[in-house]
Amino acid sequence: MSLCALCAGDGGTLVHRGAQWRVIRADEAHFPAFYRVVWSDHVAEFSDLSPSDRVACMAVVATVEQVLRTQLQPTKINLAALGNMVPHLHWHVVARFADDTHFPDPVWASARRPADEAQLAALRQRLPALDDAMRAALAAHR
Amino acid sequence: MSLCALCAGDGGTLVHRGAQWRVIRADEAHFPAFYRVVWSDHVAEFSDLSPSDRVACMAVVATVEQVLRTQLQPTKINLAALGNMVPHLHWHVVARFADDTHFPDPVWASARRPADEAQLAALRQRLPALDDAMRAALAAHR
Repeated sequence: MSLCALCAGDGGTLVHRGAQWRVIRADEAHFPAFYRVVWSDHVAEFSDLSPSDRVACMAVVATVEQVLRTQLQPTKINLAALGNMVPHLHWHVVARFADDTHFPDPVWASARRPADEAQLAALRQRLPALDDAMRAALAAHR
Repeated sequence: MSLCALCAGDGGTLVHRGAQWRVIRADEAHFPAFYRVVWSDHVAEFSDLSPSDRVACMAVVATVEQVLRTQLQPTKINLAALGNMVPHLHWHVVARFADDTHFPDPVWASARRPADEAQLAALRQRLPALDDAMRAALAAHR
């Protein structure tokens, strides 16, 4: 059994699987529109990828970002590859809204305000259509 | 006068300026090896760049990452494009160490431990050589 959580499992709700990567929805309670692009191979750093794999990886990240922008018109998109806890390359792609619990701070900072449950429920209702739009856009990627 | 801090100024110690981007050192007290790749044009989101500009931008990010890895052998590299405060595309490229104030949390979370001033002083002493290595590696990029 692998000791790496992203080798052992998908790491969230699987949205689409490509040849070298998968896109999952992270199921973060206060950030429903939080996706991750997980590279299939167990590499720690972005620069561990070959230049052509880096291009392929970021094309997927940009596509996830574009779908979030088109579908949700968020205040801002946040992108990050950290991996301090799980050193297996994964990109966080998060749609941020001016009224979310942490804005304008990063999602890893302390909350600034309580969650707006009605807003979150409305956003969660849109997730099936959002996942579908994500799959349609990602199908073009190898 | 521009209202955008990254249009009005460099945003840190200028390390190298390319045709469409610049690399600065962020001068963060507890993270001396904190660089930023700032896109010259005022665009908010990564996907506002053309596909070829995205490739050029990430090639610079990967080069900064590689120099940090080669020179400092950090525990992990953290990459992020957030821009909630300053919506002008800039990539944070941060060398993280197991004994830094926040590890394994992101630099935007709360500190876990006090700063190790001796360690920070040793790292700061390496910055001129690090900046030189950065400039040498970045000279190859347009």
